[in-house]
Amino acid sequence: MDVNADLAEGFGRWELGDDTALLDIVSSANVACGFHAGDPRTLRRACSGAAARGVAVGAQVGYRDLAGFGRRFIDVDPGELVDEVIYQIGALDALARVAGTAVTYVKPHGALYNTIVSHTAQAEAVVEAVRRFRPGMAVLGLPGSEWLRLAAESGLDVHREAFADRAYTPEGTLVPRGSPGAVLHDAELIADRCLRIVRGRPIEAVDGTPLSLSPDSLCVHGDTPDAVEIARAVRGKLAEGGTPIEPFAPPPPDPVGR
Amino acid sequence: MDVNADLAEGFGRWELGDDTALLDIVSSANVACGFHAGDPRTLRRACSGAAARGVAVGAQVGYRDLAGFGRRFIDVDPGELVDEVIYQIGALDALARVAGTAVTYVKPHGALYNTIVSHTAQAEAVVEAVRRFRPGMAVLGLPGSEWLRLAAESGLDVHREAFADRAYTPEGTLVPRGSPGAVLHDAELIADRCLRIVRGRPIEAVDGTPLSLSPDSLCVHGDTPDAVEIARAVRGKLAEGGTPIEPFAPPPPDPVGR
Amino acid sequence: MDVNADLAEGFGRWELGDDTALLDIVSSANVACGFHAGDPRTLRRACSGAAARGVAVGAQVGYRDLAGFGRRFIDVDPGELVDEVIYQIGALDALARVAGTAVTYVKPHGALYNTIVSHTAQAEAVVEAVRRFRPGMAVLGLPGSEWLRLAAESGLDVHREAFADRAYTPEGTLVPRGSPGAVLHDAELIADRCLRIVRGRPIEAVDGTPLSLSPDSLCVHGDTPDAVEIARAVRGKLAEGGTPIEPFAPPPPDPVGR
Amino acid sequence: MDVNADLAEGFGRWELGDDTALLDIVSSANVACGFHAGDPRTLRRACSGAAARGVAVGAQVGYRDLAGFGRRFIDVDPGELVDEVIYQIGALDALARVAGTAVTYVKPHGALYNTIVSHTAQAEAVVEAVRRFRPGMAVLGLPGSEWLRLAAESGLDVHREAFADRAYTPEGTLVPRGSPGAVLHDAELIADRCLRIVRGRPIEAVDGTPLSLSPDSLCVHGDTPDAVEIARAVRGKLAEGGTPIEPFAPPPPDPVGR
Repeated sequence: MDVNADLAEGFGRWELGDDTALLDIVSSANVACGFHAGDPRTLRRACSGAAARGVAVGAQVGYRDLAGFGRRFIDVDPGELVDEVIYQIGALDALARVAGTAVTYVKPHGALYNTIVSHTAQAEAVVEAVRRFRPGMAVLGLPGSEWLRLAAESGLDVHREAFADRAYTPEGTLVPRGSPGAVLHDAELIADRCLRIVRGRPIEAVDGTPLSLSPDSLCVHGDTPDAVEIARAVRGKLAEGGTPIEPFAPPPPDPVGR
Repeated sequence: MDVNADLAEGFGRWELGDDTALLDIVSSANVACGFHAGDPRTLRRACSGAAARGVAVGAQVGYRDLAGFGRRFIDVDPGELVDEVIYQIGALDALARVAGTAVTYVKPHGALYNTIVSHTAQAEAVVEAVRRFRPGMAVLGLPGSEWLRLAAESGLDVHREAFADRAYTPEGTLVPRGSPGAVLHDAELIADRCLRIVRGRPIEAVDGTPLSLSPDSLCVHGDTPDAVEIARAVRGKLAEGGTPIEPFAPPPPDPVGR
Repeated sequence: MDVNADLAEGFGRWELGDDTALLDIVSSANVACGFHAGDPRTLRRACSGAAARGVAVGAQVGYRDLAGFGRRFIDVDPGELVDEVIYQIGALDALARVAGTAVTYVKPHGALYNTIVSHTAQAEAVVEAVRRFRPGMAVLGLPGSEWLRLAAESGLDVHREAFADRAYTPEGTLVPRGSPGAVLHDAELIADRCLRIVRGRPIEAVDGTPLSLSPDSLCVHGDTPDAVEIARAVRGKLAEGGTPIEPFAPPPPDPVGR
Repeated sequence: MDVNADLAEGFGRWELGDDTALLDIVSSANVACGFHAGDPRTLRRACSGAAARGVAVGAQVGYRDLAGFGRRFIDVDPGELVDEVIYQIGALDALARVAGTAVTYVKPHGALYNTIVSHTAQAEAVVEAVRRFRPGMAVLGLPGSEWLRLAAESGLDVHREAFADRAYTPEGTLVPRGSPGAVLHDAELIADRCLRIVRGRPIEAVDGTPLSLSPDSLCVHGDTPDAVEIARAVRGKLAEGGTPIEPFAPPPPDPVGR
């Protein structure tokens, strides 16, 4: 099983999350690319830390929106979005290679992630960008999303994730943030839940209905001390249960620079 | 002889220069990388145009300063500058590869270009970035600059340029903009001067002293209709004189994506 | 009758439109505020030009989106939008006062303009911002828009505009850009049409139906040489027809600084 | 005695410092203006907190450099700097007025603060901006700086500050950051030192020499939990010692909007 989290989401003077702690927990690091967060130095540092631990580096591409942290829908022209996504992957990949690794997958961030669950034109744009950057590249996303459907059609290597700390509806979609019980906070409970998922057992949806998820990756968070604690508990529980934590898109053994 | 010019220096709604005209004139295109100018779509379009004509694509890296168009010295920490330059080259290279070519050289822009003529720490940072991106990569700069000296020491492939439309001191440095006669405007005269340079004959320095320049590339401008006219005259005169115009760092025959 | 146009929409090195020409044509200048376009120097210069000619200065507030020139919908939190609009008006007003005038009205730009025709939460946010900045302040917008309806309810001084160079549906809404005939190009025809509007006579909708508009202001454009020509023709025709061109929100006779 | 600190230095998702804690400690809040830090919502919130406590609001103007947090010298054209400073003061003042207070003084930030200690052209630009915004306005800065000298000459209301947690040379200048002992960390010692300053007694320079400072304001920091602790100790010690903490440029009793 893979465990992924967002990294490198500070910007200049502003820090966010505990990248060092997360790098000891995850097998895949969704590294920001500078459009919603992440200055080049922070990106490279995250890539170096990932390289040293065999953690895979993914491009966490987003809308160009530092002020909104990429969390606001922007009605970008799809043609421009294609080029913006290529730009971001390329920038991160160069820093990753200098750090001794390479970008092996793409996971969109924030509002872009949410938008391409259903917005076909923007989903196509992201798929087109990834495919142009590297045919058959790995991508990570929400099961059932337009984005993963189109990615699969385009021959990309599709991986699906579940969220460790989020409640699910009986239909398998996320309970929207803001609804009661949408976010789980009990580390023990979350870790147990993750272990069930990993073992292929059903978890309880928000109304108690049994729900089977079979993700390729578990998403954890790291932007608060509590979040890191939860992520650590998930990692510990899976290790205890004998599940190896390993990336779905492992770093290349010997990345060649350009 | 190579002829180079700056391209892709618009940003979003704002256009600057006539990229299409320039691409028919130059053999090397210094393509902006988004930090001082250049949105991803404009970058890709310039790369596509370059690829179609066999024009080499260079990374015109600059300070992160859209408001100042990269023309103001910024006292960036050299360590950060290394990563910012790698980020820029990588971003452009990804778009270049999607366009069927690749970045084959680096030429810094504006205040960064001027600063690293003498600012050792920033010059070292740019050299370090280029070397990390690709050992032995080609670079283009001012003869006698700290930047080219350090680049050569680091094993980079150094190329020197002369400015078609600028007056020179008897010592071979540029007459500072703002001084009388610093910028030449007569297309015929400029073209003749370029022909002399290309043939290895001395030109006149600003005070009439004969001055020998032996550049690897001639820099022309394209940000005004007059500038395009001058560039065209230079190209025409060199062609007339039988000088082939060809890039010092030709595009790879078959650039492989990542 | 008032004639308005957008000014100060360059940014740093990038120029857009011919502010000087427009200032001799319009009675109201919608001056950009730095979020979609407009650096402080350009803003001040436009304000100085307006002050010298008795042209009113309006705050052309927009989304924070230089890359998109404010032309892309951004799903900004309405609470943040309130503060962003106050910030923009305040910044421009300070420069206007230094230039000897003051901001006397607000006209949103681009995607914000279009969004608040119907998006109640964002329309409320802009109204709230203007009202907080100055109760009863003048605003300019599209007749029938949610924004003007809410502005009127809040006691703002509402003014409606018609577009000199745009075709109208029989219902009085704009024919969407991109539809055939949406934008008029014949200066003479446009000027005649404006004169009819000013005299209270019906114009022809896109299908030939007579349509009566009774705006407080005519919007002209200035971002191309043709546009300036059209604007000049409109001004000339109105003057010829004896219609005084004067601002609906005149500059204060003696603006006091803070 | 006045006590001042920097506030509102987060940006969007990124928080920095504990504004709420600081507002209970200081009498003057140097509120960021959006160029080096500070989104409009954060600015308004800081202004509201200041208004509620009778804390004065100062405009902490800086270079346009979010990526560098305004801590890097930028060789801005002085004419542009004038307009950038006016823009920033105006933007903050509008939000301050909406919050029931007003900007009563200006204190430059970071690299701009340091630069105008000696850079005459930029110092003149800031003075010009403040004077244009409001003749005779209060300013806060380093004793002996070019900026305060020129400000005084221009009729601005000059106030000088001392740094609670910084070591001084025998000549009364700050020991540069990075030098041994440059920054003090012992809250008790710092508070005692501040009490001596307030009572007009000499403190010890870094080499033990007695040094008399007679500032109008003491600068404290708030960007770490330790810093807040120190600031609180300083406030406590002054209160204990019977020194009233009050702003040198008090908020207007009844700020009128525009």
